[in-house]
Amino acid sequence: MPPTSLLVVGSLAFDTLETPSGHAADELGGSATFFSHSAAWLAPKVRLVGVVGSDFPKRHIAEFEERGIDVSGLQVMPKGKTFRWHGRYGREMNNAETVSVELNVFGKFEPKIPAPFRNSPFVFLANGSPRTQRAVLDQVDRPKFILADTMNLWIETEHAALIDLIRDVDGLILNNAELLQLSGEPNVVAGARWALAQGPKVVVVKKGEHGAMLFTEKEIFALPAYPLERIVDPTGAGDSFAGGFMGHLARAGATTFDEMKRALVYGTVLASFACEDFGLRRLFSLDAGEIEKRAREYCRVFAVDLEGARKPARSNPRRRASPARK
Amino acid sequence: MPPTSLLVVGSLAFDTLETPSGHAADELGGSATFFSHSAAWLAPKVRLVGVVGSDFPKRHIAEFEERGIDVSGLQVMPKGKTFRWHGRYGREMNNAETVSVELNVFGKFEPKIPAPFRNSPFVFLANGSPRTQRAVLDQVDRPKFILADTMNLWIETEHAALIDLIRDVDGLILNNAELLQLSGEPNVVAGARWALAQGPKVVVVKKGEHGAMLFTEKEIFALPAYPLERIVDPTGAGDSFAGGFMGHLARAGATTFDEMKRALVYGTVLASFACEDFGLRRLFSLDAGEIEKRAREYCRVFAVDLEGARKPARSNPRRRASPARK
Repeated sequence: MPPTSLLVVGSLAFDTLETPSGHAADELGGSATFFSHSAAWLAPKVRLVGVVGSDFPKRHIAEFEERGIDVSGLQVMPKGKTFRWHGRYGREMNNAETVSVELNVFGKFEPKIPAPFRNSPFVFLANGSPRTQRAVLDQVDRPKFILADTMNLWIETEHAALIDLIRDVDGLILNNAELLQLSGEPNVVAGARWALAQGPKVVVVKKGEHGAMLFTEKEIFALPAYPLERIVDPTGAGDSFAGGFMGHLARAGATTFDEMKRALVYGTVLASFACEDFGLRRLFSLDAGEIEKRAREYCRVFAVDLEGARKPARSNPRRRASPARK
Repeated sequence: MPPTSLLVVGSLAFDTLETPSGHAADELGGSATFFSHSAAWLAPKVRLVGVVGSDFPKRHIAEFEERGIDVSGLQVMPKGKTFRWHGRYGREMNNAETVSVELNVFGKFEPKIPAPFRNSPFVFLANGSPRTQRAVLDQVDRPKFILADTMNLWIETEHAALIDLIRDVDGLILNNAELLQLSGEPNVVAGARWALAQGPKVVVVKKGEHGAMLFTEKEIFALPAYPLERIVDPTGAGDSFAGGFMGHLARAGATTFDEMKRALVYGTVLASFACEDFGLRRLFSLDAGEIEKRAREYCRVFAVDLEGARKPARSNPRRRASPARK
């Protein structure tokens, strides 16, 4: 199967960010933005559907186009304002406190998938209400692979609709706390088993600084995070992770487990770059060579070869003796 | 260098354990116990130094001897009682609440290293007061590799003595929260840099269900945890991890970075087994074949081969253009 198109439906936003590394006001942000700019480093055809207000500068549209991202599904509401979020991170940058949020035009977002986008084989439903995500499913034409993200808000307020949605997707991506909350299970492995039983063939668990895990009915895979000594801004890391993951699958045109393992590497790498500067800045200053270099370095550094070990383990005298005792 | 002896100095205890999987009373426990029974699966000569009371059953002594662990450094106090701990784990089993603790003979533990133990090339200073750990250093004869564990209590109450101690060891092993507390740094990577600057050549960070990391001045390595769907009792997992790590180094007789990476695999594997039943039960029912099988399966499952990926990443038109703009 040839490299193929990747549709993302989600938010575009302006973020005001306060982290221990500094402040930034009115940074371009939003789930579809981080996702598409990450994925576009890998996938040849990224298609974006979202909504912005009349305050959205044309230069950001040009930035999408420059990266080959098709914005013909971007709704511009002439009388509305773009979604705004103001977040503040504590010292360890694990969680953001929301200082303020203005949903603006995103609060009434009704995704309309342009006819030429409906055949996209790869689809990412960025974090949004399960009803909005369902509206996308109703408009696409049997994609090869649909990945859905979600968050604690929808797990709390739209639990039934969310369970109903994940029954109809191929993959679910979420962070470890969300998985425990959604499943009611006490650990990630049991939570992933629960989620797989609801319908998806794949569950991707994002654990931030602790890496990521991939679960199917028969296989488990895990990777540590790329170790960063200094994180400037973790905003968008999860969507950049998803962008790297889906971007790799779309360029490979395949969803075998081996290709998903590689996709997890690219997710890890894109997420690590996203954290190195505020908003999308680092994703804009990247080059493909840097991505491949970091992916290869990461795989080399975290590979282990047991074969060179020097001594076999010892046997258990009890176990050796036990057959004779019978 | 041939496989060689491994000295551990630490606690022996009776634990009463409450976990979501059940309860167990008066289980054999303690840091030196978990460490030595894990290490003995790999290392040919494990030497234990610790203290117990007159209530310590002879059968536990026999269990050490049966596994080839030299207990000639075990002090038995005829008028004292063995250290006792009662812990309760919450649903996610990340942290134990101490219901009660009786230090008993361990409260006045003064380690005495028997003369034949003093030449041990590998030494593990299990969690204990930095003064007790220092007393061991004063009695050993230039070991090849000394690894020290610690905990939040000593970071709070004996900070200066602890910093002084780690200046004189080769490796420091601790969990991620302890590393942040000790270093005052906001993330594990920065915390490890700080710790390396104090003196040790290696820092091993235990992250429980999130795996482990290994840092030297020039290299970083990380592994995910072995995924367990059901954890019966995490008590002793950290000491079993250290036992697998040091047990492998001692059997290899080497401390190259490649050997330490392999040692981290064996630490991961021994810790995973320890969690499968209460106390030391699973470490007793193991066989060497199971350890090697899990180590090899783990390395196979978590390996990734990027070379088979199907498409190169795309280049950045901005970056390509930029030299011309100058």
